[in-house]
Amino acid sequence: MTAALWVALIIGLSTAVQHGATASYEYQIKTIDVPIDHFTYTGEATFKLRYLVNDTYAQGGNDLPNSPILFYAGNEGDIELFAQNTGFMWELAPKLKATLLFVEHRFYGHSLPFGNASYESPKNLGYLTSEQALADFALVLRTLNPPNGTIRARPVIAFGGSYGGMLAAWIRIKYPHLVAGAIAASAPIRQFQGLTDCGIFNQILTSVYQVAYTTECATNIRRSWTTLQNYSTSADGLRVLNEKFKFCTNLTRATDVTETLFDYLTDVYGNLAMINYPYPSSFLAPVPAYPVREFCGRLDKNYTGVELLDHLQSALSIYYNYDGKATCLNINSSYDGTGISDRGWDFQACTEMVMPICADGVHDMFLPQPWNMQTYADKCFKKYGVHPRPAAALLNYGGEFLDASITNIIFSNGLLDPWSGGGVLRSSNENVKIVLIPEGAHHLDLRASNPADPASVTRARAVHVQNIQKWLTEYRKQRKVY
Amino acid sequence: MTAALWVALIIGLSTAVQHGATASYEYQIKTIDVPIDHFTYTGEATFKLRYLVNDTYAQGGNDLPNSPILFYAGNEGDIELFAQNTGFMWELAPKLKATLLFVEHRFYGHSLPFGNASYESPKNLGYLTSEQALADFALVLRTLNPPNGTIRARPVIAFGGSYGGMLAAWIRIKYPHLVAGAIAASAPIRQFQGLTDCGIFNQILTSVYQVAYTTECATNIRRSWTTLQNYSTSADGLRVLNEKFKFCTNLTRATDVTETLFDYLTDVYGNLAMINYPYPSSFLAPVPAYPVREFCGRLDKNYTGVELLDHLQSALSIYYNYDGKATCLNINSSYDGTGISDRGWDFQACTEMVMPICADGVHDMFLPQPWNMQTYADKCFKKYGVHPRPAAALLNYGGEFLDASITNIIFSNGLLDPWSGGGVLRSSNENVKIVLIPEGAHHLDLRASNPADPASVTRARAVHVQNIQKWLTEYRKQRKVY
Repeated sequence: MTAALWVALIIGLSTAVQHGATASYEYQIKTIDVPIDHFTYTGEATFKLRYLVNDTYAQGGNDLPNSPILFYAGNEGDIELFAQNTGFMWELAPKLKATLLFVEHRFYGHSLPFGNASYESPKNLGYLTSEQALADFALVLRTLNPPNGTIRARPVIAFGGSYGGMLAAWIRIKYPHLVAGAIAASAPIRQFQGLTDCGIFNQILTSVYQVAYTTECATNIRRSWTTLQNYSTSADGLRVLNEKFKFCTNLTRATDVTETLFDYLTDVYGNLAMINYPYPSSFLAPVPAYPVREFCGRLDKNYTGVELLDHLQSALSIYYNYDGKATCLNINSSYDGTGISDRGWDFQACTEMVMPICADGVHDMFLPQPWNMQTYADKCFKKYGVHPRPAAALLNYGGEFLDASITNIIFSNGLLDPWSGGGVLRSSNENVKIVLIPEGAHHLDLRASNPADPASVTRARAVHVQNIQKWLTEYRKQRKVY
Repeated sequence: MTAALWVALIIGLSTAVQHGATASYEYQIKTIDVPIDHFTYTGEATFKLRYLVNDTYAQGGNDLPNSPILFYAGNEGDIELFAQNTGFMWELAPKLKATLLFVEHRFYGHSLPFGNASYESPKNLGYLTSEQALADFALVLRTLNPPNGTIRARPVIAFGGSYGGMLAAWIRIKYPHLVAGAIAASAPIRQFQGLTDCGIFNQILTSVYQVAYTTECATNIRRSWTTLQNYSTSADGLRVLNEKFKFCTNLTRATDVTETLFDYLTDVYGNLAMINYPYPSSFLAPVPAYPVREFCGRLDKNYTGVELLDHLQSALSIYYNYDGKATCLNINSSYDGTGISDRGWDFQACTEMVMPICADGVHDMFLPQPWNMQTYADKCFKKYGVHPRPAAALLNYGGEFLDASITNIIFSNGLLDPWSGGGVLRSSNENVKIVLIPEGAHHLDLRASNPADPASVTRARAVHVQNIQKWLTEYRKQRKVY
C-alpha cells in the first residue's frame, strides 16, 4: 500500500508542477522566521514560514506607497497550489500596479514548524490553529510593509477562498490596521454549531447532482450505498468490488467498504461539486469542464447491482483518472498529490474548526448520518488526544451578527457550492457586501477569467474590483491623517 | 526582611478590605473555568478565573435583553481593588438598569493558573499575556451573555483604566461581536517603541511636580539623586540614610541606594502623580487630597544635604505612611498591599508590554537614563529567560493609525497623568472619541463622583454617558437585524 500511495503522490505532484508551468504565474519563493507560539512566552522557538512574492507590477520610487499589496491568506495546502489557482489576483496586479503576496499557512506545504515531526500529536500539532496562522500572516504583513509613523503602510487587500476566505475575512476583522479590505470567497464562516443546520451542505450537494444531467444521478448515488454494503458482507462480494474498482489496495473487510470507501466517495462527490467549473481544471484533480455533469452523464439511467457498480466506477474515473495516468484507485485520500493536506485539516476539524455536517437520506442522497458531537469528540480524542472546542471559532471571530464596525469585506458565494450553506449570504451591514454567483462552484470568482465563465462570475469580479478601488481610495485619504 | 515585608502586606491588605467595606460596593464573587492556553491545543488544562457580579439593577423578564452589561476589563491586580475604585460604573448601573461585571486578569488577584507555582518562569508565567487575558474575558462574556441565534446578546460596554483601559479598547477592537463600546480611560496604547518619545512620561511627571506647589519641589527631587548618591558611598553615609528614612531593611551597599531606593522613589513619584486626585483616596496607597501638592509642600524651599534628606523623608511619608500605621519604609515595592502585582507586570513588561521610558535630566527631574532596548532585553532574559517582543503590541492591536473600522471607543486622558503622553490624544476617526481632562490624574473619570471633582471630569463623565447611550441605541436597532 505504501508503495502504491507514493506512486499516486508522485503522479499528483508532477501534475501540480506541470500545471504551475502551464499557468506561468511566476514568483520568488522566500521564508521568514515566525514564532511557533505567538501567544505565550513559554518558549522562543521559531520556524521558517514560506511566502511567494511577485513585485514586477508594483510602482517604484515615490509612487510605491500607492501600490497596493494583494495578499492571499494561505489555506490548508501548499501555497503554490493556491497561487496557481487564483488567477483573479494575477489579472488584478498589473491593473492596480500591485505587489502579489501569497503566504503559506503553518503546517501545510513547506511551512512545517517541526519538520517531519510536525504531525506528532498534540505536542507539536497543537500549534496548528487559525489564530496562530493569522498571527503569522500579520507578522509577514507588518515586516514586509511597515508604516513609518506619520505615513501609513501600503494598502493591503486580502484574498482567500474556502478556509482561506475565512482567514481573509478574519484578518480584516482582527487586524484592521494591517488589511484595508478582504475578498472572502466561498468562506463558510457560519458553518458552526448552533448557527447553520448540519444538513444544508448535503442538501445543496444533492441538488447539484440532481440538476447536472438527469435526476437518475442522485438516485443512483443514493442507491449505491446499499448495493456496496451488500457486496461488502461476503468474500465473493469484496472480490467483485476489488475487480470492478481496481483499488490500489484490495478491500478485505466490510469496514473497508462502509468506512474507507464510503468516506472516499462522500469526499469525491463534495470535491466534484466544489470544482464544478465551466472549463477543464486541475485544482483538486485534473477534471473536464463541468465534472459533475460528466460524472452524472455516466450515471444517467436507472442502474442496479453490478451494472450500477460498473457505471459508478466509470463515473468516478472522471475524478481520479481523467488524465488516464492512474493505474489503480487509491481511496485513502481524495486529495492525493494536490498539495492539500487532509491530515492537517482533520486535526483542525477536531479542535476549533468543528463544522458539523450531517445527512438524513431523505433530503439528500446519502445514508442517514446524524451529527453527534459526543461521538465526534470521542473520535477526536482517540485520534489526537484533544477535545474539540466547537464554540471556539464563533467565540473568536463572531458568527451570525456582523457588528457595524466590521467593514470592507466582500463575502462571495457560488450557489452551486455546497459550502455556500454555511457562508455569509445576507448582511444588514452596508459595509459588508454580499456577492452571489448563481452558476458558481467553490470560489470560482478567484480563478482566472475564462471564455466559458458564466456572466454572474464576470459580474462578481467587476464588483470585487469596484469595491477594492473604493477601499483603496478611502485608505489613501486616511493615509496621512491620524 | 521577610517578616517586615509581611507586616507591610498585612497592613496593606487590611486597608484594602477596610476600603471595600467603606465604599460598600457589593457583589457576588464567582469563578469560571477557562483554558490556560486559548490558542494552542498542546494541553487541555484549565484554571478558575474570578469575576464579580452585581445583578441588582438589571431589568428582569422580557426587559432583560435591554439591560446592558457594564464590564470592567481587569488589569494588573486584585479585581476587587478595581471594583472598589471604579465608582463611575456603580453610579451608572442603576441609571442604565445594568448588570455590573468585573473580570479578574489571569495571574493577578486570586486568578492564578498554577496556584502558588504560577510565577515559576517562564514555563508557567509564559501564559501571562494580554491576548490570553482578552480571550479569558471573551469567554466569560460569551458564557454569561450568549446570543440566541436570531437575537443578539445583551449589549456589553467595556470599561477599564490604565492597562485595563488598553484591554477595554482592545477587546472592542478584537471582539466587536461581544462588546458594543468601550470607555478606555488613561490607556497608553501608544506608549510603545517607535511611536511615542520615551522621554514624554518623565517630562509630564516633572511638570506635575513643578506646578503642584513651588517649583523648588522638582528642583529638590532633581538634586536629591546626587545627594543620596553621595551618602551611598560610605558606611557613615549609609548609616545616616538608614537613620533618617527608617528603612524596613537597612541599606548596606551603594547599589541599595542607587538601584533599590532610586527605583522606589521613581515609582513613588509616578504613583503620586497618577493618584493626584482632588480628594483623599486609597487606590495605590492611602493619601490625602492632591497628594503631589502635599508632597511638594514639604519640599517647598531650596534644600540641600541633610536638610534635603529630612524633607524628602517627610514628603515620602505622604505616600507610605499617611495613615500613620507604617513602622518603617519598605522600598521593595511601591505597591505593597494594594493588591497590585508589580511582579506580574514586570514580566509583561519583559515580553509584549515593553513601554519605553527614559530621562535626560534636563527636561525632567531625573538622572539621565537613556532607553536601551538591548540592555533592557538582556535584563529580561537574565530575570525570566525570555526575550521581549517590543513590536508585539503594535503588531497585534495597531498603534498610530486607528482604522475607520474601529468604532465606539472613547479614549479619555487626564493631562496631569504622566501616562497621557502615550495615550490617544487625537483621532481623525469620528467614531473614536477623545476626551481630555486638563485637571485630571490617572483615570479620574472612572472614579465615583466627588464634590471636589473639577468641572472637566464631570463633563467627561457626561460625555461618556451620552456616548454609551448612543452605542446602546444603535446596538438595539441592530439587535434583530442581520
